[in-house]
Amino acid sequence: MSVLNKQIVLANRPNGMPSLDTFRFVEQEINEPAEDEVLLRTLYVSVDPYMRGRMHDAESYIAPFQLNEVIEGGSIGEVVTSKSEKYQPGDIVIGMFGWQTYYTAKEEEVRKIDPSIAPISTHLGVLGMTGLTAYFGLLDIGKPTEGETVVISGAAGAVGSVVGQIAKIKGTRVVGIAGSDEKITFLKEQLHFDEVINYKTATNMKKEIEKACPNGVDVYFDNVGGEISDAVLSKLNRFARVPVCGAISSYNLEKIDVGPRVQTTLIKKSALMQGFTVGNYAKRFPEGAIQLGQWLQEGKLTYRETIREGFENIPNAFLDLFKGNNIGKLLVKVSDRQNDQ
Amino acid sequence: MSVLNKQIVLANRPNGMPSLDTFRFVEQEINEPAEDEVLLRTLYVSVDPYMRGRMHDAESYIAPFQLNEVIEGGSIGEVVTSKSEKYQPGDIVIGMFGWQTYYTAKEEEVRKIDPSIAPISTHLGVLGMTGLTAYFGLLDIGKPTEGETVVISGAAGAVGSVVGQIAKIKGTRVVGIAGSDEKITFLKEQLHFDEVINYKTATNMKKEIEKACPNGVDVYFDNVGGEISDAVLSKLNRFARVPVCGAISSYNLEKIDVGPRVQTTLIKKSALMQGFTVGNYAKRFPEGAIQLGQWLQEGKLTYRETIREGFENIPNAFLDLFKGNNIGKLLVKVSDRQNDQ
Repeated sequence: MSVLNKQIVLANRPNGMPSLDTFRFVEQEINEPAEDEVLLRTLYVSVDPYMRGRMHDAESYIAPFQLNEVIEGGSIGEVVTSKSEKYQPGDIVIGMFGWQTYYTAKEEEVRKIDPSIAPISTHLGVLGMTGLTAYFGLLDIGKPTEGETVVISGAAGAVGSVVGQIAKIKGTRVVGIAGSDEKITFLKEQLHFDEVINYKTATNMKKEIEKACPNGVDVYFDNVGGEISDAVLSKLNRFARVPVCGAISSYNLEKIDVGPRVQTTLIKKSALMQGFTVGNYAKRFPEGAIQLGQWLQEGKLTYRETIREGFENIPNAFLDLFKGNNIGKLLVKVSDRQNDQ
Repeated sequence: MSVLNKQIVLANRPNGMPSLDTFRFVEQEINEPAEDEVLLRTLYVSVDPYMRGRMHDAESYIAPFQLNEVIEGGSIGEVVTSKSEKYQPGDIVIGMFGWQTYYTAKEEEVRKIDPSIAPISTHLGVLGMTGLTAYFGLLDIGKPTEGETVVISGAAGAVGSVVGQIAKIKGTRVVGIAGSDEKITFLKEQLHFDEVINYKTATNMKKEIEKACPNGVDVYFDNVGGEISDAVLSKLNRFARVPVCGAISSYNLEKIDVGPRVQTTLIKKSALMQGFTVGNYAKRFPEGAIQLGQWLQEGKLTYRETIREGFENIPNAFLDLFKGNNIGKLLVKVSDRQNDQ
């Protein structure tokens, strides 16, 4: 084959904010599939804040990225050639093959998705890890009940926007925290949040939260950490639950992230904070995916995607995650389907 | 009656460390019991760190103490005269009548205890709220399983010393953190903790914890908060559980207690922090009390009490809680039983 596989590898481990220099583009021969393998051409790749954590060489729930190796992450591909009985050319599959234009996958490394349910890109977003993160974090840890108040930081982000909608489905009062007028309008008008707070223009977050939550905070879905979370935690109700999903405010800090210690609040309120990653719920993914798909088909769940075009734009799309501009799920489209029916 | 009821009332709300001036001694007439009431003479009163929290005029899980009102807390008394069918003179009862030498109680305000099981003082300690706090916090939130590592701060204190013993009963590796050689010896030799750390002589707590916990920390029973907890939290294992019981390091701080934010650790480790107070488990007190009594009778549970003598010494005993000198449960004996069989 004369076409080469373009890859983006980790060039160095960033200290503080990553930059374009964090990445390097390389080209490789494409491996023909062996028995039980398929050759995939990448259609979409996901860029997610959690990937920043994998750039550290530190122990975590998931292995760090290796220097000079392809950046791993959720991607969708189309089967080009198949040596597996499970897949036909033209099949659309999802897997963790990351930032490269082609991938030769063992058949168990990927999973077929049904392009008839919803646009295939949604399998990296609302119907994929993003939606499942929202679903399990909110329902399994947050356990909201009707009439309770649910506060969400990073509310206009990929996960936050799904959390808020599920919280509405569950009959709660939903308060979103986000950082631009455009996001605030999106949350109010498209997702029908009950209250929204623009933390960038708020002069006193504690007061804003008090105003938006006259009955206090029963569930706080934390995507950001930092001072926003300090303020929300100070308004927890008794027996409040705090699913801790992300701490984007701290991912690029060069020193230790310091703030008020939480112990006294947790004791006074008999409150719970539980960190999690969606992988903890792997056995229950089918349950979550079926429910999310059903809500989507019933029109109870909507989604927003920002789709960038072009493999070469992946690093910039990733860096944009930390600028706080995007709404909903951020994806990069790498190529078109060839076998689109 | 010519005898007067001596009381200790809250004279003012301390800012920072309380002192003898925080309290005032007053005397009152003793009320003769009305129908369904009993007159009690106080035998023992409990002094506990959580009482410091009630001296603030701030919303919490329990109402603040009122100025010029008797300091409430667990006490044991003997029935002097009874207008209740439920109680006879000489009966020993427990209730929340606090720091006073006599109390006229409605029959439902107190509960009879059986002085034949164990010394009556244990009903304020290992068989009382202290033991129940350890029991429910460790088992319901910490959920230790055989072979796991349980770390306890404030390990030689009233709650901590019971937590460690229950953790041993459950077959875990128990590591205690305490602040004096005497406490360390007590934990090692009397309570058979696997490892102990004297935080006052340790130069690097993280390293000490690493050494004492070669397999990491599965459960951290937090009685102290502050820098000790920062160090332990940095060594949590995946799916670790942190019952947050007390934060004595912060109770007398005059400014906000600041330290590393916990969100990133909780996410990386899918760890749980849960604040609690024993009152959350009120419905299950009988279960806990029966189990603790059984362990005590079987010799699986031992206890240490420090009993001060004399009503006038209650404020000093309370202040001593924050000096870190006492081992086990701290009580004040106010008078002897008159009807001791």
